[in-house]
Amino acid sequence: MFSKETYIRRRTELKKLVQSGVIVIFGNNESPCNFPNNGYYPFRQDSSFLYYFGVQRDGLVGVIDIDNNVDTLVGDDIDIEDIVWYGSVDSVKDLAAQVGIEHSAPMKQLKTICHDAIKLKRKIHFLPPYRHDIKLQIFDLLGIHPNQQKDAASMPLINAVVKMRSVKEDQEIEELEKASEIGYLMHTTAMKLIKPGVTEKYIAGQVSGIAGSYGAMVSFPTIFSQHGEIMHGNPSMAVLEEGRLALCDCGAETINNYCSDNTRTMPVSGKFTQRQLEIYTIVEACHDYALELSKPGVKYYDVHMGVCRLMTERLKELGLMKGDTDEALAAGAHAMFLPHGLGHMMGMDVHDMEALDQKYVGYDDEIQPSKQFGTSALRMGRRLEKGFVVTDEPGIYFIPDLIDDWRAKGHCKDFLNFDLIETYKDFGGIRLEDDVLITDNGCRVLGKQIIPYHPKDVEEYMAKHRM
Amino acid sequence: MFSKETYIRRRTELKKLVQSGVIVIFGNNESPCNFPNNGYYPFRQDSSFLYYFGVQRDGLVGVIDIDNNVDTLVGDDIDIEDIVWYGSVDSVKDLAAQVGIEHSAPMKQLKTICHDAIKLKRKIHFLPPYRHDIKLQIFDLLGIHPNQQKDAASMPLINAVVKMRSVKEDQEIEELEKASEIGYLMHTTAMKLIKPGVTEKYIAGQVSGIAGSYGAMVSFPTIFSQHGEIMHGNPSMAVLEEGRLALCDCGAETINNYCSDNTRTMPVSGKFTQRQLEIYTIVEACHDYALELSKPGVKYYDVHMGVCRLMTERLKELGLMKGDTDEALAAGAHAMFLPHGLGHMMGMDVHDMEALDQKYVGYDDEIQPSKQFGTSALRMGRRLEKGFVVTDEPGIYFIPDLIDDWRAKGHCKDFLNFDLIETYKDFGGIRLEDDVLITDNGCRVLGKQIIPYHPKDVEEYMAKHRM
Repeated sequence: MFSKETYIRRRTELKKLVQSGVIVIFGNNESPCNFPNNGYYPFRQDSSFLYYFGVQRDGLVGVIDIDNNVDTLVGDDIDIEDIVWYGSVDSVKDLAAQVGIEHSAPMKQLKTICHDAIKLKRKIHFLPPYRHDIKLQIFDLLGIHPNQQKDAASMPLINAVVKMRSVKEDQEIEELEKASEIGYLMHTTAMKLIKPGVTEKYIAGQVSGIAGSYGAMVSFPTIFSQHGEIMHGNPSMAVLEEGRLALCDCGAETINNYCSDNTRTMPVSGKFTQRQLEIYTIVEACHDYALELSKPGVKYYDVHMGVCRLMTERLKELGLMKGDTDEALAAGAHAMFLPHGLGHMMGMDVHDMEALDQKYVGYDDEIQPSKQFGTSALRMGRRLEKGFVVTDEPGIYFIPDLIDDWRAKGHCKDFLNFDLIETYKDFGGIRLEDDVLITDNGCRVLGKQIIPYHPKDVEEYMAKHRM
Repeated sequence: MFSKETYIRRRTELKKLVQSGVIVIFGNNESPCNFPNNGYYPFRQDSSFLYYFGVQRDGLVGVIDIDNNVDTLVGDDIDIEDIVWYGSVDSVKDLAAQVGIEHSAPMKQLKTICHDAIKLKRKIHFLPPYRHDIKLQIFDLLGIHPNQQKDAASMPLINAVVKMRSVKEDQEIEELEKASEIGYLMHTTAMKLIKPGVTEKYIAGQVSGIAGSYGAMVSFPTIFSQHGEIMHGNPSMAVLEEGRLALCDCGAETINNYCSDNTRTMPVSGKFTQRQLEIYTIVEACHDYALELSKPGVKYYDVHMGVCRLMTERLKELGLMKGDTDEALAAGAHAMFLPHGLGHMMGMDVHDMEALDQKYVGYDDEIQPSKQFGTSALRMGRRLEKGFVVTDEPGIYFIPDLIDDWRAKGHCKDFLNFDLIETYKDFGGIRLEDDVLITDNGCRVLGKQIIPYHPKDVEEYMAKHRM
């Protein structure tokens, strides 16, 4: 939790931006896993609630009455039976005081607050809900059917939150640096543990454990797989095999829920093969090129397309692509190899603010999301600003089903050398990812120590530290 | 996944027990954490769905038309865009075939199936939902408001599922043994890592990582705390201190989602103090006494009360309790020290079938849940049967808030020596827990190797293995 003044300042700014009405920001509740009450997933507070109200407890709602300039923390105190199970915790009144709020109220009063506002025809601003219990809560409070809540969410509130959360404060950057340190430990541990005969799950478990040891939790379920060509491949009980690549995409959340998100791709044997190196060095060049291009004022869409251009040129040199580069890019042929975007915003959510909808977070009036396969998965297209944190994550994948699908349809056949591509069906995929802070004149990768990614560095690290 | 024949046999048995109508068992969907679509918690299938339909994928529903003897697996196939992200997966038709089902249908057909059944006034049986997305799904399908769904759930279906899932098959016991092996690794790792200066979170993270490395996940969020007196204490960033006790309550789920659940309490310094030993040996005696008492035909309520009696006698010897033992037990005075029950059913859910409601799982016509503080938290009271798996988890806690509360009210003052109890406010709590299979004539603790719990064994293990 940051200082009381931080939260007061943020709420004051929010009121200025939204101008009038009543803002209701729902904190998260416990999330049932396989049974209610005790069968919960680990508690994760809503990030916007955290940003403005800072409190980590479940069952809270923050209310900001702009017109009357009254902030209220709504929630029920726990009783002695709860204390036995969950320990003695601060009252809602005390929690409110910790983040500079004078007023607190029990949950039953939320209905009154909302109904009074509705009676006076005052606007109630809420964010698009993503958890189903909150959808039911909004249904009960405001009578809006769950299917209509996304459309009923407040655009002024969404815009204000995006504006504020996009630019990271210094204390937020410190938190992100801490998350990167945990991420460094996670990835270098994977490098130490990778060897033929170990299961994917074994390494994913150990790596995820580090996130829990030093932070709040993993920032998303750890991806560790020899099938790097599957973007979100769950670690399996499959055993690592000599000669293959292992892709590790993981990160941690600090105790204050700031995230890291990195990807490395490593040779199981500790040494890249020549064919692996040829593809790896393209991804490496793309990763570094994005860092050259990224600075305030530049559209991240253009950085993405710049990287795709470089990748296309290099894949042509290998004979995997062919034809005119501009035409190939226009046709989206490169998406055969890179079917996702170069990166996304990152902060308290690993895909920062994605709950508010990518089209408001990563796009604006000037630049709209593409509909073309591949580029449509670019989550961040708009102009970079100082204080933005984005991921830089190019990849090259050989996806057997996609190869078969495009080949059968003849899709982009003028730009793809399908005969050669076929021979890579057993290759897997390579991705390299770092978290990038946009600075005054350019950018820098977060983290005191950069996780090794130049091929020689990876091989050296593995040779030196492998268990 | 077990053999196809297993699932066919179980569904056949279920049809016999429920007799008529249409059974709809909802599989779980992905559960959003802090944003939708990508911000998921790890997927956990519903246990009853797993029991009858065996399939681990999200977005499925199992339908059993008893009257027409037709089983259908309902769900949508994934397309090429999904394959890029999640890999090529079997079609719903193929998944159905793997568990001996001939019929599959897309999700949109579920509405037709339900509406046809309603039109013909056939009974639609469903289990009480615990996830809010499923509540919305039932609302859409059957028009039953989420608040009324628990009451609208099918008693014949609940009773049948409880009857079947309560008695573990041999192959289920094998799975539970595997889970116990992972649990052994988790607990002995904690014993190795505990030392002054290490954070609670560090150990909890490492221990949880083992569950991920060898199984599906933790069977519940790992409890590791020097505040053992908080039943479900989250691990904190607090540092372990010389002279204190650390309580570790954790377990794993195997790949097939069978659980382990054990608790050990260890001295941070590696050596118990005299005061700690006096309390520890009472808990140890209670743990062992429960194993003596547990066998088919015995009410677990009686085992619980037997343990409470022993505990009361021993606490009287220490001067912490006083007065007549029978009267103290009748008044619930022992619940000052043991405010929870001796144990619960365990299986695919760590609190097995708790989603179906403890009063149907742990109780029956013969024995009903108690309303008295402490005993009311006993999740399992009915007669044991061969093949049941229950936890044996006595504990003694000194809960400052509870001591203050009871003392102020004079609650049970004839049986409690508050002056002496006050001096234990810094003690914390001790719990010992194992998973117990009821056998032909008695019971046995699950796991090839029992995690050390006799004080000498714990001290010896720590002396030998601590890092």
